[in-house]
Amino acid sequence: MALPTISLPQGVRDILPEEAARIGAAEAGILSVFEKHGFRKIVTPLLEYVDVLSLGMGANLKDRVLKFIDPSTGRVVAIRPDITPQIARVAATRMREHGLPLKLCYNESVLRYQEPRDGKSREVLQIGAEYISEKASAAIDAEMIIISIEALEAIGLRDFKIDIGDVGFLRAVLDKLPVDGESRGRIKDSIAIKDTSGLEAALSGLKLPGKDRQLLLNLTTFYGEEEVLEKAASFSKDAESLSALEYLRVVVDIVAKKGFKDRVTIDLGEVRGFDYYTGIIFEGFASGVGKPILSGGRYDTLLARYGFPAAATGFAFDVENIISGLERMDKSRKGQGRVL
Amino acid sequence: MALPTISLPQGVRDILPEEAARIGAAEAGILSVFEKHGFRKIVTPLLEYVDVLSLGMGANLKDRVLKFIDPSTGRVVAIRPDITPQIARVAATRMREHGLPLKLCYNESVLRYQEPRDGKSREVLQIGAEYISEKASAAIDAEMIIISIEALEAIGLRDFKIDIGDVGFLRAVLDKLPVDGESRGRIKDSIAIKDTSGLEAALSGLKLPGKDRQLLLNLTTFYGEEEVLEKAASFSKDAESLSALEYLRVVVDIVAKKGFKDRVTIDLGEVRGFDYYTGIIFEGFASGVGKPILSGGRYDTLLARYGFPAAATGFAFDVENIISGLERMDKSRKGQGRVL
Repeated sequence: MALPTISLPQGVRDILPEEAARIGAAEAGILSVFEKHGFRKIVTPLLEYVDVLSLGMGANLKDRVLKFIDPSTGRVVAIRPDITPQIARVAATRMREHGLPLKLCYNESVLRYQEPRDGKSREVLQIGAEYISEKASAAIDAEMIIISIEALEAIGLRDFKIDIGDVGFLRAVLDKLPVDGESRGRIKDSIAIKDTSGLEAALSGLKLPGKDRQLLLNLTTFYGEEEVLEKAASFSKDAESLSALEYLRVVVDIVAKKGFKDRVTIDLGEVRGFDYYTGIIFEGFASGVGKPILSGGRYDTLLARYGFPAAATGFAFDVENIISGLERMDKSRKGQGRVL
Repeated sequence: MALPTISLPQGVRDILPEEAARIGAAEAGILSVFEKHGFRKIVTPLLEYVDVLSLGMGANLKDRVLKFIDPSTGRVVAIRPDITPQIARVAATRMREHGLPLKLCYNESVLRYQEPRDGKSREVLQIGAEYISEKASAAIDAEMIIISIEALEAIGLRDFKIDIGDVGFLRAVLDKLPVDGESRGRIKDSIAIKDTSGLEAALSGLKLPGKDRQLLLNLTTFYGEEEVLEKAASFSKDAESLSALEYLRVVVDIVAKKGFKDRVTIDLGEVRGFDYYTGIIFEGFASGVGKPILSGGRYDTLLARYGFPAAATGFAFDVENIISGLERMDKSRKGQGRVL
């Protein structure tokens, strides 16, 4: 019998003992920080019906779902590409009687096509936490950011930063302007990839007040410490956009007062997941790792889509990217050792 | 927008915090026993090519695999129904230079159609260990059985037993008899489900020496302590079948000498996975739980199918069935409490 070529489908891989041990240690460290903050682990299923999952998926994920027809029912089933919609479903259908707030965490793998076109998929090991409450509050968002920092410090990561933005600000600005859906999409997409000339082109045909045009063109430069909030506020008189900036200021203040000022950067040009998140969004980056080690934000409309109106904020670590950060740290420490 | 019916595909489920905490504690307890015995964890991918996976799958699993066409390559991909073939693949392709013995463990979920006909699938949380060595030895098989017992005791399970059989014995008996493939299958299947009249029917048309006929008819009664080995031996003069019995005796002796005599029962009528296993097989049962809490055995031909001839023995716990056993124990303890 001829052996088939022994290979793996694209985007999945084996994790050998040394790396698996590192991953296990990181997972245990992170979960113990979650637990200390009152989060309880749940385990969600590998498969979901696509129509159920779609209620809670961001537009950017919908094309990245691996789906197939369940031969027994004829319904379309997906391998989960994200845990958050599953948590929303569980909270909305099976945990209502637990009362709010509901603080849940998980440690599972998801599967995503990396690019819709080339069909590459990637199994991502995620550890995340979701905080579901009656109302949104800056204190809760700040707590989530602080937990993410504490968890990373607990497992020994040193050189990392959290970028914090707020999609509510851009949304409030755009809502007040005479911008049709298509232009809105082009503006948002250009900002998301920090494409200034694309942004200029998108704005060129529109009749906008000069100050608003300036604001949009400057959005990607609103990056840094708290003074960028003042800078942004100087362009706007609209109550809703000012209130988004004020919310963000309170969040960053709480994080700073807990001693984590140096860990965070404000980034108003960060509009990832614009259609999914409703307020604060944040992403973590480790020195020398090209991809985010965590991402999250507030999503106050998601649970209502499962019939349970409630506010929620959460984030997930990408465990393998964290391990890359830890490994890079080890290497640079060894490098220093040789120099001394 | 009308909400779709919020339900889950058949055979998968949500695990809420209380049960998830129990599962987490059981997993940690079991993995720490594995680690104490020198097993190192690996993480295998969710997806495999079906032709690669099929090299190492028992016939009973082949119909229970959830598979689909990978849209990017046109190859048939499966969600893993078993971790052991993945471990064999990894050991054969990526860990040869680690040398033998190779002691690996894992803690992952697999997906199996429960019945080929009704299309039900079931996500099973497994924790298992595999011991790959140059040669088979009774000492290694005994060690694996002892580890399974120690792990169950470590997590507080009390009323459980391990049934030990040896498919090598029945195979040696059948190999010496003038039995065609079809009859062989019927004999094996009748014994597997302890169907005495079916077994009699399967034997009725065959010309067999009286003693061999008696042996096959009595196989399902060879259940109990070490004396069943002598009883079985009295029916046979064939060196190979006697050597299988002797191997089994040595395994059971080692387990008994380590103080676990009361935990094990010999069951020569146990022929589960006849086509997959090559020697010792064992299954664990907890009081009040209808399904096995663990199953395993020796599979000395599997690694060669991946191009790496080596002996191997292993087992996997079904974590949810273990939790059922622990819960039942708690309930009966509480029940006793009320009586006192």
